Amino acid sequence: MQHVISALVENKSGVLARVAGLFSGRGFNIDSLAVGETLDESVSRMTVVVKGDDSILEQVTKQLNKMIDVIKVWDLPQGQAVERELLLVKVAAEGGRRSEIIEIADIFRARVVDVTQVDITLEMTGNPQTVVSFLGLLEGFGAKEIVRTGRIAIGRSVGGG
Amino acid sequence: MQHVISALVENKSGVLARVAGLFSGRGFNIDSLAVGETLDESVSRMTVVVKGDDSILEQVTKQLNKMIDVIKVWDLPQGQAVERELLLVKVAAEGGRRSEIIEIADIFRARVVDVTQVDITLEMTGNPQTVVSFLGLLEGFGAKEIVRTGRIAIGRSVGGG
Repeated sequence: MQHVISALVENKSGVLARVAGLFSGRGFNIDSLAVGETLDESVSRMTVVVKGDDSILEQVTKQLNKMIDVIKVWDLPQGQAVERELLLVKVAAEGGRRSEIIEIADIFRARVVDVTQVDITLEMTGNPQTVVSFLGLLEGFGAKEIVRTGRIAIGRSVGGG
Repeated sequence: MQHVISALVENKSGVLARVAGLFSGRGFNIDSLAVGETLDESVSRMTVVVKGDDSILEQVTKQLNKMIDVIKVWDLPQGQAVERELLLVKVAAEGGRRSEIIEIADIFRARVVDVTQVDITLEMTGNPQTVVSFLGLLEGFGAKEIVRTGRIAIGRSVGGG
């Protein structure tokens, strides 16, 4: 089963390598990883997507929690978090194909970020399934280059007043 | 100086830890890192943002190129690439503040992804400067939680017909 692990870690040299090493040491391959700054510049937030055995992953999460540079760890269950990723894709757009591509982009609320006579670069955000559908539709046009951020997730509020 | 390093790597357990270890071994702190899938599921693309001495970074890039699991490495000069990151931010929105927040969101073309009676969650993409400006404006409302993907970059085409 796929898990989304979110962690607050100290923004220090070596922390990322140690966290990544903890997963690979247990044989987990990281499907995606995103590390960015938070409001506090001494702290980074990591979002790791991994597939693997639930009980082993529980151990890894416990070990993460014990690491000196790790402040907090969550295992975000699917459906209880807003999951998004960002995609940049450069597509061949010669001749009259540009308008067809822009039509698809509009459906997925993707935006044009660069355009030349021979290609067009789009940015698109969505949950992982939407990103895959979008890429599937663009495949026929010849996607020249793709960069994805990997998934980030934020817990849904259970808020009342 | 800040550098954006983009690399195609084998999608295998341990590769990420070795790449991160290469940077930290030279004392570079990674400001952000994004790893996502590509069209070829055996290959991932990493975007690493690091600050540091240019000549040492050149050495690190050369060493990266020599790693068996690294397929290709680019050092993307600023201005010659489209740089984007994705942000999810949960902001307190009690009372009449929600409409003020949505007004700011509209200016930055951010989208509402979750809303409760007490808070609102927005997604926003932009270059790093825009993300910082957006966060600055939201600060007064009390940002409860922030998740950023880290930057991704795609080279601008120099295309003619």
